[in-house]
Amino acid sequence: MSSKLTFVLFVLLALAGCSAPEPEPEPVAVPEPEPPPRIEYALAIHGGAGVIDPSMPESTRTAYEESLERALHLGRSILDRGGPSLDAVERVIRLLEDDPLFNAGKGAVFNHLGENELDASIMNGANLACGAVAGVRTVKNPISAARGVMEQTRHVLLGGPGADEFAREIGLEAVAPEYFYTVRRWEQLQKLRDRPPGDERGTVGVVALDREGNLAAGTSTGGLTGKRYGRIGDSPIVGAGTYADNRTCAVSGTGTGEEFIRHGVARSVAAMMELGGLTLAEAARRVVHETLSPGDGGIVAVGADGSIAMEFNSRGMYRGAADSQGRFEVKIWD
Amino acid sequence: MSSKLTFVLFVLLALAGCSAPEPEPEPVAVPEPEPPPRIEYALAIHGGAGVIDPSMPESTRTAYEESLERALHLGRSILDRGGPSLDAVERVIRLLEDDPLFNAGKGAVFNHLGENELDASIMNGANLACGAVAGVRTVKNPISAARGVMEQTRHVLLGGPGADEFAREIGLEAVAPEYFYTVRRWEQLQKLRDRPPGDERGTVGVVALDREGNLAAGTSTGGLTGKRYGRIGDSPIVGAGTYADNRTCAVSGTGTGEEFIRHGVARSVAAMMELGGLTLAEAARRVVHETLSPGDGGIVAVGADGSIAMEFNSRGMYRGAADSQGRFEVKIWD
Repeated sequence: MSSKLTFVLFVLLALAGCSAPEPEPEPVAVPEPEPPPRIEYALAIHGGAGVIDPSMPESTRTAYEESLERALHLGRSILDRGGPSLDAVERVIRLLEDDPLFNAGKGAVFNHLGENELDASIMNGANLACGAVAGVRTVKNPISAARGVMEQTRHVLLGGPGADEFAREIGLEAVAPEYFYTVRRWEQLQKLRDRPPGDERGTVGVVALDREGNLAAGTSTGGLTGKRYGRIGDSPIVGAGTYADNRTCAVSGTGTGEEFIRHGVARSVAAMMELGGLTLAEAARRVVHETLSPGDGGIVAVGADGSIAMEFNSRGMYRGAADSQGRFEVKIWD
Repeated sequence: MSSKLTFVLFVLLALAGCSAPEPEPEPVAVPEPEPPPRIEYALAIHGGAGVIDPSMPESTRTAYEESLERALHLGRSILDRGGPSLDAVERVIRLLEDDPLFNAGKGAVFNHLGENELDASIMNGANLACGAVAGVRTVKNPISAARGVMEQTRHVLLGGPGADEFAREIGLEAVAPEYFYTVRRWEQLQKLRDRPPGDERGTVGVVALDREGNLAAGTSTGGLTGKRYGRIGDSPIVGAGTYADNRTCAVSGTGTGEEFIRHGVARSVAAMMELGGLTLAEAARRVVHETLSPGDGGIVAVGADGSIAMEFNSRGMYRGAADSQGRFEVKIWD
């Protein structure tokens, strides 16, 4: 038999096999529940948790809500057009850093010497790469310095003048320390003796899931009003204020940083999912309401499935959430 | 019936009840296995993990072993006479800091500018109190500054000149930056170009369980030879290089600090016990050999039950272990 004939016979048999399936009885039409549409991307942001007075002037409240909405819009547009979660995190945090309403970048609180010392961190859930800076004084956007540490050094955390110097070396915009001065934060420092320390917080944080399924998280802060010179909080501490791992979730925290370090809050949420089998919602609730104490603060988190958790145990938390399903919300209190 | 008579009757009845138990059949003598004697206290120390050359001169090896034995003796004597684990941790680390053999305190490595920047942290497993300093340059014993932060501030971590200033304020011994100069470490910096960075490590750490059942952990280091100015490693990061929680264990790590931060190594061991139900030995093995990569370093850990784990994935780890059962051993390689 020639190879040509073999080939023709093979094709005919193959066609017969394909075109003549066994006739099967028509299945009874049972309407199946539609699977929920997959969440393609999601993002959550916070602008700090703490004692937020519900009787604040309408104009102040509107200003916060508009800032959060602007940030959420920016993040959503990056994710919607397929941008990486890491870019969404960095760019939204830069926007919030430049906004004097929040205690990060411009608008940072003063330490007890009347200086601004800024902390930030960022983490890539795809490969656990992370970077952070602590105590910078001349970097306009600390979150970008954190990203620089992650991508351009073999280190994870740079602190103090060495971190400022590094940011200049990689070409980030430098500012005079006075850039961070705002009347409101200066007056807060002066009034500190009349109020419990650290009850005014405005740390910012962003967590995001992109269309590729990659998670990222970032946090940026001026710390606590009246903090000691040199005090480093949880925001630049990977595992405490920030964590991201594609296998579980991305988390950013805000509140009494010392408690977030002590309990390794951001990493704990991931660990409870990974080791304890909890859902994101359960893990977030447990960490915020059982591990932490009332008043300590809160977290925003996004899971690998696009679920979003925003939990806090303080009187309020500036926050917002958006996803590919059309969710788009900004809240301050319950 | 007078109250006196009542009393007498009561006493007689009580005596009868006490003195006349039901005669029981003699039990058949089944020899039961002796329960293992409870470990009353335990301690483990490390002096760094990394590429430790087994062909080092006999005199060098003996010097390391003697230093580790001296440290172990000191810790054991504190714990044996009922001292708190926190004191054992601090005092043993001070001894190792003062010993130029180790990369902590005197003997710290140089950063790329030829300066010494020291990091340390300490944690109390009884209440999760913790304190740390990063990048100090004039504190003779950084571990005591870390304890000062824990006990005398509302903060957890102080960095840079603010941490040096704090240590002076609380009366700790200050030294000129030149105190930390040693010929050996200076030569290591000069030779850095000929060798992979950070392959010489000597971070010190101590974990202890005391007779009260309290765990404590501490870590102190000069960091990596040739590190960037301002680089902060895992040693001052609670959850990364150090963790202690009476419910599970106390852990101190040594190695590539960035990996220890990324994976939250010290806290992960505790989380695997708490959330995953692993034993200390299993958790330590899993974190060191599965989470971390070969060459990253190692940990020493002591459990609430007095069990000790010393795991490493590098060519060696200077280490020692002692407990109330008479265990007393010092090792460098397998």
